[in-house]
Parts: sequence; C-alpha cells; structure tokens
Amino acid sequence: MSKEITARAVDYSQWYNDLIIKGGLADYSAVRGCMVIKPYGYGLWENMRDVLDRMFKETGHVNAYFPIFVPKSLFEAEEKNAEGFAKECAVVTHYRLKTDADNPGKLMVDPEAKLEEELIVRPTSEAIIWNTYKNWIQSYRDLPILINQWANVVRWEMRTRLFLRTAEFLWQEGHTAHATEQEAVEEARRMLDVYADFVENYMALPVIKGVKSANERFAGAVDTYCIEAMMQDGKALQAGTSHFLGQNFAKAFDVRFSDKENNYDYVWATSWGVSTRLIGALVMAHSDDEGLILPPRIAPLQVVIVPIYKGEEQKAQIDEKVHAFMKELRTQGIRVQYDDADNARPGWKFAEWEKKGVPVRVTFGARDLEKGLVEIARRDTSEKQNISLEALTDTVMTLLDDIQENMFNKAKAFRDANIRKVDTWEEFMQTLDEKPGFISAHWDGTPETEERIKELSKATIRCIPLDNPQEEGKCVLTGKPSKERVLFARAY
Amino acid sequence: MSKEITARAVDYSQWYNDLIIKGGLADYSAVRGCMVIKPYGYGLWENMRDVLDRMFKETGHVNAYFPIFVPKSLFEAEEKNAEGFAKECAVVTHYRLKTDADNPGKLMVDPEAKLEEELIVRPTSEAIIWNTYKNWIQSYRDLPILINQWANVVRWEMRTRLFLRTAEFLWQEGHTAHATEQEAVEEARRMLDVYADFVENYMALPVIKGVKSANERFAGAVDTYCIEAMMQDGKALQAGTSHFLGQNFAKAFDVRFSDKENNYDYVWATSWGVSTRLIGALVMAHSDDEGLILPPRIAPLQVVIVPIYKGEEQKAQIDEKVHAFMKELRTQGIRVQYDDADNARPGWKFAEWEKKGVPVRVTFGARDLEKGLVEIARRDTSEKQNISLEALTDTVMTLLDDIQENMFNKAKAFRDANIRKVDTWEEFMQTLDEKPGFISAHWDGTPETEERIKELSKATIRCIPLDNPQEEGKCVLTGKPSKERVLFARAY
Repeated sequence: MSKEITARAVDYSQWYNDLIIKGGLADYSAVRGCMVIKPYGYGLWENMRDVLDRMFKETGHVNAYFPIFVPKSLFEAEEKNAEGFAKECAVVTHYRLKTDADNPGKLMVDPEAKLEEELIVRPTSEAIIWNTYKNWIQSYRDLPILINQWANVVRWEMRTRLFLRTAEFLWQEGHTAHATEQEAVEEARRMLDVYADFVENYMALPVIKGVKSANERFAGAVDTYCIEAMMQDGKALQAGTSHFLGQNFAKAFDVRFSDKENNYDYVWATSWGVSTRLIGALVMAHSDDEGLILPPRIAPLQVVIVPIYKGEEQKAQIDEKVHAFMKELRTQGIRVQYDDADNARPGWKFAEWEKKGVPVRVTFGARDLEKGLVEIARRDTSEKQNISLEALTDTVMTLLDDIQENMFNKAKAFRDANIRKVDTWEEFMQTLDEKPGFISAHWDGTPETEERIKELSKATIRCIPLDNPQEEGKCVLTGKPSKERVLFARAY
Repeated sequence: MSKEITARAVDYSQWYNDLIIKGGLADYSAVRGCMVIKPYGYGLWENMRDVLDRMFKETGHVNAYFPIFVPKSLFEAEEKNAEGFAKECAVVTHYRLKTDADNPGKLMVDPEAKLEEELIVRPTSEAIIWNTYKNWIQSYRDLPILINQWANVVRWEMRTRLFLRTAEFLWQEGHTAHATEQEAVEEARRMLDVYADFVENYMALPVIKGVKSANERFAGAVDTYCIEAMMQDGKALQAGTSHFLGQNFAKAFDVRFSDKENNYDYVWATSWGVSTRLIGALVMAHSDDEGLILPPRIAPLQVVIVPIYKGEEQKAQIDEKVHAFMKELRTQGIRVQYDDADNARPGWKFAEWEKKGVPVRVTFGARDLEKGLVEIARRDTSEKQNISLEALTDTVMTLLDDIQENMFNKAKAFRDANIRKVDTWEEFMQTLDEKPGFISAHWDGTPETEERIKELSKATIRCIPLDNPQEEGKCVLTGKPSKERVLFARAY
C-alpha cells in the first residue's frame, strides 16, 4: 500500500483528496473554493472534452461563445432559474482599482467606478443565451439552433471539494432552440444518450438514465433527465443532466417565431451539461489504495515504460528497443512515455506511475531482455506477465481494450450488487446506514414526502429510471399507493 | 459590391463592423463591451487554437488551468503589473443575491455577503500562477515548467471594438519558469517565432518581429517581444507578444530554487499570449468590399458547393456527383459544405458565401454538367474558371494552396510598399497623415521623446525590429544621435 495515500477503509474522504493531489490531477489555490487543474488532470480533461466534442458535432451541434457576465436584469428574468442560483452568485460591482492612499503599494476598489448594473459571473448561461437567441430567431427557418459552449462557470458553494464541487469549474453547456415540443424533448433525450454513451464507454462507468423528481429538477426546467453513477462507497454521483426547458426561457425573454402557416409561438428549449465534476466521479469510482486507475480510452498516458539496467551499455541497448516499441505504439495512436530519468530507482517509478493510474506499465530489464522478454503490468488488476518482445505491441493493444472492458464490468458488478429493493421504512433506514448503495423503493409521488425522507435519512431521489417497470406498491414512508419504484441514495 | 457591407473607401471602421456582423463571425451582447462569438467565428477560432495548441505541444508545453479570480493581495504583489492593469479590473465584491423586498420578482446584491477580500477577474494570470509555482518549485529538478492555459480574461476597456478590443476575450497565456536567464530569454524568443510562424503560414499575414520600447512594454516585463502586422488602412496591429519577465514575479512571490550546487536563486520567467484579437487582424488585413476573405488553412469552410438546376431530376443527377466529390475532398481532410437549400437562388447564395469568405466555391450547373464541366470561383481574386469534373478534386486542392500563398504575398507586397524611411519631423508628420503605413525613423532612445512623438502624432513605436540594421542617424524629433531606425505607426 502506498504510504502517501490514505486507505479507503481508514478515511474515504481523505483517500479521495490524496488521489487527486498525489496523483497530480489538481492542487488547491489561493482562491477560496477554486482549484488549479494541473497538466496531468488537464490532459485527462482534454481527452474527455475531445471525445464529447466529436459526439456533439456528430449529432449536429456547433460551438459558440457567450459572455461570462450576465447583467442582473437578465439574470432575474426567468424567476425560477434566478431563484435557484441567487445564493451562489459571484457579483461584479466595480470596474477599476486605484492606489490606496493610506497603504503605499496597495490597491483599493475605486468607489467611483461602481457599475450602474451589477454583473453576475455566469453560474449557467440560459439567461444571456436566450436574450441573444431573441435576436436570432424570427421564423421556423431559423430553427433549430443547436449550440454548445465550452466554458468556465462560477457557483459560490459553501462546502467545496476538488473536482466534485468547486466555486469555479469547467464544463460544456448545450443550449438548443426548437419549433416543437416533441423535437425539444427528443433533443434532451438524445443528449442524455450521448452522455450515457460517453460515461459508460470512455469513462468505464455504468450509469442509470432517469428523470429527476420535481424537487431535484434544474431551476427553470420542465423535466431534468440525468445519468446517475455509483461510487465505491455506495453514494450516488449525478454525472450529467439534460433539461427539457419547455417554453420557460422563451417566455421570459419573449422569443417567438412564425411557423409555416405564419402562426406565432414561443420557442421550445433544452440545455444540457457535464463538467470537470466527471473527473471526480472517475477518480472515486475506479481508484484503489495505491492510487488512481484511469480507463485507457481517456487516460493522458496509456503506457509507461521503465528501464532496468546497469551502466551505459545496457541502457543504450534498452533505449534502442524502447524507441522502436514506442514508434509502433504511436503509429497506433497510443499515448506512451519513456521514464528513463536517472535520479529515481525503478521501484520508486513503479509506485509513482501506479499512483497516477497509467493503465499499462512495461518494464524493459536488461536481464530479461537477454531472453527476449519484457514485463507487462496492468494497473487495474495489478497482474504482471513476462512476454516476448515480438508479441509486445499486439499484447499491449489487446490489454488496453481488456482493461477498459474489465473496469466497466467491475464497476457494473459492484453497482448491480448494491441496488436493493426495500419495502418498509425501518428496512430503508437500516439498509441506508448499513449497506452501501442505492435503494429501490416505492414513493407516493409528492414533493412533501420526498422532502421528509431527505430530512430523516439524508437520502434523495436520484432518479426515476427511464426504463422503469410499473409495479403497484406502497410508499415506503407514508404507505400511500405508488405505481413504480424510484432510486434513493445519499449523494455527492 | 455587396449592398449590406459599407465600402472601405466610405467608412473603414463601419466596413470592419459590417464584415464581422454580416459575415456571421460575432454579434453584440447585452453586456457592455462583451461580444458573442457566433458558430462561424468560433469555428475559425477552433481552427486557430488547434494549430497553435499543436505548435505549443511540439515545443514541449502542456496545458493546465488556473482560477479565474485573483485575490487583491496577490494581484498587487508585483507592483508594476498591478499598476498596469488596475484601471481595467472587473472586481467581484459579493457572493450572493437575495430577493429585493421593495421590488417583487427582482433580486439585489446581499449586503451581508460581502467578500472579506475582493477578487479580481483575471486580466492576465501571472499573479495567480506565480503564487502557485511557489509551491511547485524547490529544486532545479522542478524546472523548467512549460505551461500554457487557454482561458477567458477580462480587461475593462473604455472603448471597445468587436474582436480587436473587448472587455472579455479568449486567449492562451503561456507561463514558463526557468533556472537560467538565458533559457528564459530563449523561450520568449522561441514562442515569438512560433507566433510568427502561425500568423504568417496559417493566417497568411506577414509580421515584423521586434522588441518593444520601454513605454510599450508589458507591465512587469523586462523585455516584450512582439509581432506587428499592417492592416489595409496602414495602421499597425500587435498580433502577439512574448515577454521575458526576468525575476520580477519570482521576487514578488518569493519563488526560489536550489541549483545543482545547492545555491538558492530566484526563478526566471516568461509569459506569452495571443487572443481572439487575431481574428480582428485577419478580417482587417484580407477582406474586401464584398465581405470576408479567409485563408484556406484556417477557414471554417474551405469549399462550398452550389447547385443550379431545374426540377427534381436534374437535382438528383447533381446530388450524386456532388456527394462523390465531397467524399473525395473529405478524404483529403477538406472542410466542405453543400448548400442545396431550396429557399434561396444561386445568386443570393454566391453573395452570402462571398460575404463569409469561403476560399473556393464550386458551382454544379445542370447545363455545364452535360458537357462534363463545373465552375470554380476563388474568393481572393474573384476569378472563375470552368474545368472538367475529372480534374475537379486536384484543381481544388491546388487552388487552396495557391489562395493561401497568394493572400500572403498580396499582404506582404502591400506591407513592404508601405514602410517608409523618413528623416525629418516635417516629413514624419506629412507621411503619417498622407500615406498609410509604417514609418522607419531614427529615435534618440528616450521614453520622453517617444512620449512626445505620441502626443504630437498619435503614432507609437511599434517595435525595434529584431534583425535591425545598425545605422548612424539623428532622432527625427530631437536631432540627437541614434544608432538604428525603429518602426512608428498609428495602431489598433
């Protein structure tokens, strides 16, 4: 076990922080609640972003960029949205600093440079975007608008955690405009499918697709679709949301269009987003007490090579073989690094790369090489094997696929084993306290009961699964009739 | 001439705005001085960003992300830098809104949610980054740090113009840390070369590499290297800067390292950046009275295809040939679009795509096709030619290269023809007022003279060219001795 990383069993929360910091993904910053995303963490985000961006473009979307500031009068136009975010808003009130006459070398806010209208640093961009769409949409010929934005947003959370909940985070937000309700609902569902595809097939993390209850809905949405993932401690993490916004924003910003028959109607909207929070999910779902375990498809580095040798002559022989191998891997598009730093021993390097979660490590040892052998270690299972140099590239390629698949299967088996049906309140509380995971239970469908359950148990309805079987039952708290089970869990 | 676009000769400034708005690159927003970058403009930026990002990675840099906010106490640590940006700072003072009891449905800044320390929205990130590097650097083994960041920054400019000067803009900022002065200077020069390579070979815009005079230096830099481009009205536009920061930021944030001999010294720094301002340069340097002219290598669309037909049968025949052609182009990596919208006539489409500056237009006309011919039009020279369908792909590929080269050569010929040597003050003022372009003149090397020249003429020293021939002369204003000519111009 790595000495630097706290074991999950000892302190799960500290384990998570250690993984992020010591795995080199991010660092704390001098700004309350904001983090620095280090090159290794940013490389991971770049890979995730590139895949998602391709998926968005393949589904007909284009990127654009809207201002980071939202004038207060626009921000408050859609009342529910405004109310939902009002308590988390960073507000720009002044536009100039001046020298502080009382403190030489120091600056102060210039009271004469007060803005007439305060600017909100965007917590989300519906308001500024729909105020813009108003000018872009007159007729059905201007629809649909299928725009995505990659941006930073700020939500002034009181309790922050690296990646999972930071005051500033990076994300993408899609904002689409449609002529019909059906088209908008289809879009919201399509993007939920894109998210599920990405999280399952690239992040190796199984998700449950569902719709939120009214209490958990995005502020300003008619329906919020979501994908929910289970972490290793059994808690839920909302990995992405896609909102059907109805005509709420169109009405707030008076965005109407004329259809083919020259009838005027408000435009239908969706918005959908995933953020750097996904990195938190990735870390928490797959890692172990040795460090990160990253899925090959998005890992910044897929293969790391460590040499073991004595003297320059052996080193030169190894170098030659390593460079040929790297060239082969790179031809196949594999991200590989040769760690031949001369100031660290192989054992130390092994631990470092394990901490960083590189899927495959290949050791070129001078003695093994005499027999034509190298050692391959896979990060997910810690298994090692000696294989012949000739078979190396093919073996590594197969292994990367195998690791990707194994990580998903492992997470799925854990998830599936930890969704429990319960039918009484006593059982509900006992299961929640004693067993990690989600609870599938009946609920009477009212916000009041949901709120009461949350107060009593700290569990929320994560979602009503999309493919939910209909089943008569009684609400786990009130005993009132229910037509389907919903998923409850404590959540990040 | 396009009716929608004001001619250069009529109103150069309005021409520029028309190109941006009517070419679909950007739009005004509800936030003072901030713009919306529309999908077509953002597509251009994505292409520019991708090329630059590759160049940065090829020169050993990695990306990371630092907070958008800079606490005031960090911001003011490097005094010259702070002083230089203090007047342009958007300041966050509060972190919450609340319902306004006097105005139902409205929000107000919650006076109880005042930050203890104000946060500056980054106008540039040296302060927050060097405060972080302090924790990352102990020994020479931690150096160099070669980090770049793609981000938004805010500078509260009083007079704004789309792309050229906006309150918020997108950019990249490289921030590197080095063990020696020489290494840092080399880095600053290397990145200047990267910028020049990019602007000349991708944006088709010739630049002059130089170093800034003290008055024009970046606040906090020891030396500011720059690339300067000439616009069609003869004014200069600074297209990119690379700063050698000496040990200024290391001293402000106490960032020291131990070298191999265990000596402690402050770290040496560079920073370098280009921004969405480059799009303004691109627009202003190449376009004409019909609209944008975009260089093929970074144009969002390189080829557009317009069909001319009567009836569904002709359309079907054209479609088949167009799709085969598009497939060939896409195999070659060409960005192509088929504009077969049925609600606009070909002539209208031609004008639209000219306005958008697509380098090559191919017209598939039913009648020409009977003879096996299609028409190719190049945007840069407006030349058209009929060629055989068999030769189409090859011709288009060659034409794209030719357009790229021609655009650069044209801009360079204009630039070279409009740099004038002058030796007297009278000639200086007369040339400046009567002839567009740069002036090459002697200067006595003092900030006072430079300032006086600026007051009298509104021209500034754009740079002291890096390959400047040494030549005895007399200052154009004071008559004092000078060893080299420098470049003066009015600038954007």
